[in-house]
Amino acid sequence: MKLNIALLAGDGIGPEVIDQAVKVSDAVAQKFGHDITWKPALTGAAAIDAVGEPYPDETHEVCANADAVLFGAIGDPRFDNDPSAKVRPEQGLLKMRKKLGLFANVRPTFTFPSLIDKSPLKRDRIEGTDLIILRELTGGVYFGERGRLNDGDTAFDTMTYHRFEIERLAKKGFEMALKRGKRLCCVDKANVLEASRLWRETVQAMEKDYPEVEVTYEFVDAVAMRLIQWPKGYDVIITANLFGDILTDEASVISGSMGLMPSSSVGSEVSLYEPIHGSYPQAAGKDIANPLATVLSAAMLFEDKGLSEEAQAIRNVVNKSLAEGIVTEDLAEGGKAYKTSEVGDWLAKNI
Amino acid sequence: MKLNIALLAGDGIGPEVIDQAVKVSDAVAQKFGHDITWKPALTGAAAIDAVGEPYPDETHEVCANADAVLFGAIGDPRFDNDPSAKVRPEQGLLKMRKKLGLFANVRPTFTFPSLIDKSPLKRDRIEGTDLIILRELTGGVYFGERGRLNDGDTAFDTMTYHRFEIERLAKKGFEMALKRGKRLCCVDKANVLEASRLWRETVQAMEKDYPEVEVTYEFVDAVAMRLIQWPKGYDVIITANLFGDILTDEASVISGSMGLMPSSSVGSEVSLYEPIHGSYPQAAGKDIANPLATVLSAAMLFEDKGLSEEAQAIRNVVNKSLAEGIVTEDLAEGGKAYKTSEVGDWLAKNI
Ligand SMILES: CC(C)[C@H](C(=O)O)[C@@H](O)C(=O)O
Ligand SMILES: CC(C)[C@H](C(=O)O)[C@@H](O)C(=O)O
Repeated sequence: MKLNIALLAGDGIGPEVIDQAVKVSDAVAQKFGHDITWKPALTGAAAIDAVGEPYPDETHEVCANADAVLFGAIGDPRFDNDPSAKVRPEQGLLKMRKKLGLFANVRPTFTFPSLIDKSPLKRDRIEGTDLIILRELTGGVYFGERGRLNDGDTAFDTMTYHRFEIERLAKKGFEMALKRGKRLCCVDKANVLEASRLWRETVQAMEKDYPEVEVTYEFVDAVAMRLIQWPKGYDVIITANLFGDILTDEASVISGSMGLMPSSSVGSEVSLYEPIHGSYPQAAGKDIANPLATVLSAAMLFEDKGLSEEAQAIRNVVNKSLAEGIVTEDLAEGGKAYKTSEVGDWLAKNI
Repeated sequence: MKLNIALLAGDGIGPEVIDQAVKVSDAVAQKFGHDITWKPALTGAAAIDAVGEPYPDETHEVCANADAVLFGAIGDPRFDNDPSAKVRPEQGLLKMRKKLGLFANVRPTFTFPSLIDKSPLKRDRIEGTDLIILRELTGGVYFGERGRLNDGDTAFDTMTYHRFEIERLAKKGFEMALKRGKRLCCVDKANVLEASRLWRETVQAMEKDYPEVEVTYEFVDAVAMRLIQWPKGYDVIITANLFGDILTDEASVISGSMGLMPSSSVGSEVSLYEPIHGSYPQAAGKDIANPLATVLSAAMLFEDKGLSEEAQAIRNVVNKSLAEGIVTEDLAEGGKAYKTSEVGDWLAKNI
């Protein structure tokens, strides 16, 4: 297969972890006889510094014409505590999601047998966890009107949802549930928010089309509790953009290592693959960041292209590296800590 | 001291747990020579059923004229999955908060030595946790304009914050931090929301008035993770209404028993005390619900009235009941499960 992949390294540790995913993907391509062309493009603070814009048109062109996008991380502390900054790296991320129509963020949460004891949660609570959070990604309060009134003393943001946005996300949720545990949980705040009531109403109306799927409705505050108390209680969760932002990060704690969790963002055209961790600026340039989440994101990419064997090869070599202790310092536990690039080299060699 | 306390039992297990808090408070009053007059009033689904309104004017009169409000729980499943319901029990709660000016919800999170192993989190992660979340309670998306457009196919909610709302909440946060660990964390989503940027800006401007307090700013998604990974990292957290709703419930998992966590809601006039658990309809009327969170909420009430010894007497008897296993079924662990009313009787007798 010929694959054109847009490569958006982004900020902080982004470039370093992306490099390793490229190495591993190239090794897979070579082994299985595929042909990958990488198309690097600028995004985030890196793009602001270079061209004054976090998601330049040229970058969009590259992504829109690619078969998939592999993404590192975005965000730079220079912008975080400056409420007056006019351009922010994060705007690039949001613009990218919107312009590429990536309306669903798919976040699997599972445990790694060899790492389960690193979780802050007790083993019996989490062993066997296998859930997916499907976060709506191009609507809600992220994209509503916002601004200031009263000389800046009043600020507002608008949380808006249209029925079609909920329907297309829920459809993916139902379809995923059908292929898995056949349970779908719609998470909202319907006891307060009108947008949540529209969510509930829309999903309720779709239930009849998926008689095999058991659907439940829970409030986001309750789920923030239950996700930690008993993650095995969930199969597929669908939720709005802001709730998903919070719950997916919360869920990432379960596995015990954020550094291992991949994700994909899908829509109607091209899909994007990225680690769920952030740009981790303190570690940038030090060759110490854990590249596995990005490597496993590349595995999701292969899987979605129908290349299951290739995806499995990546997951296998990752498991092997964990078992043999070829890991970065976050997982070293007193053992030898390998460099980011060393882990990447080892994985590529052992594919 | 003469105390006039409005008694809002509410729905589900509310009446049962409230009864025990009354027993215990009466025992304290008798022992320390105080005089409590309880003023029961209707709220929630119970009030809708009786007078068609979840927070009737008569109830507001009772609360507004009381020295404090003791509150049980609100919510009834009859209303939850009916998106078309015109009146909802929760509206009563929101109206009450607004009309009584209860702009800050105070939620302590701590562990009970005798219960620490009930937590889904590992002991070394949580032992010694002592944090307070201060949630803004009368603003934000809970009280903004909301509605439908496009024949009901579009729903919107507005998240609005005024500088004065943030200032008065932050002031309480700074003052609390001064009396405790001197660390304040402002939790927001300033990389996306304009309202969050106003939060950050407002709190930043107040920093100079509290030079002793170390202030940090974190994003809500990151905090949803860190709260579980390392709760000891926090002292006082201040946050907006919706974020606080999610984070306080999440934090309640730490202690291992929601059934023990009290809270207060304060403003300029009367304060309200309530357990953080909900109305738990499945248990209603069965005399099995854990009354300790409500009993400990009464302790917070005494404390705020300057009656520290009385508050301590309640906390002591609660600890004693836990140590001696005089507990409801949620804490019984194979031992004898006492009834809600039996636990209340025991506590009152042992004050
Ligand atoms: C950086 C930020 C805008 C972004 C979001 O909130 O969507 C991030 O937290 C994420 O989850 O990808
Ligand atoms: C019942 C609901 C409206 C309420 C809220 O969201 O404030 C509850 O979850 C709470 O935290 O007291």
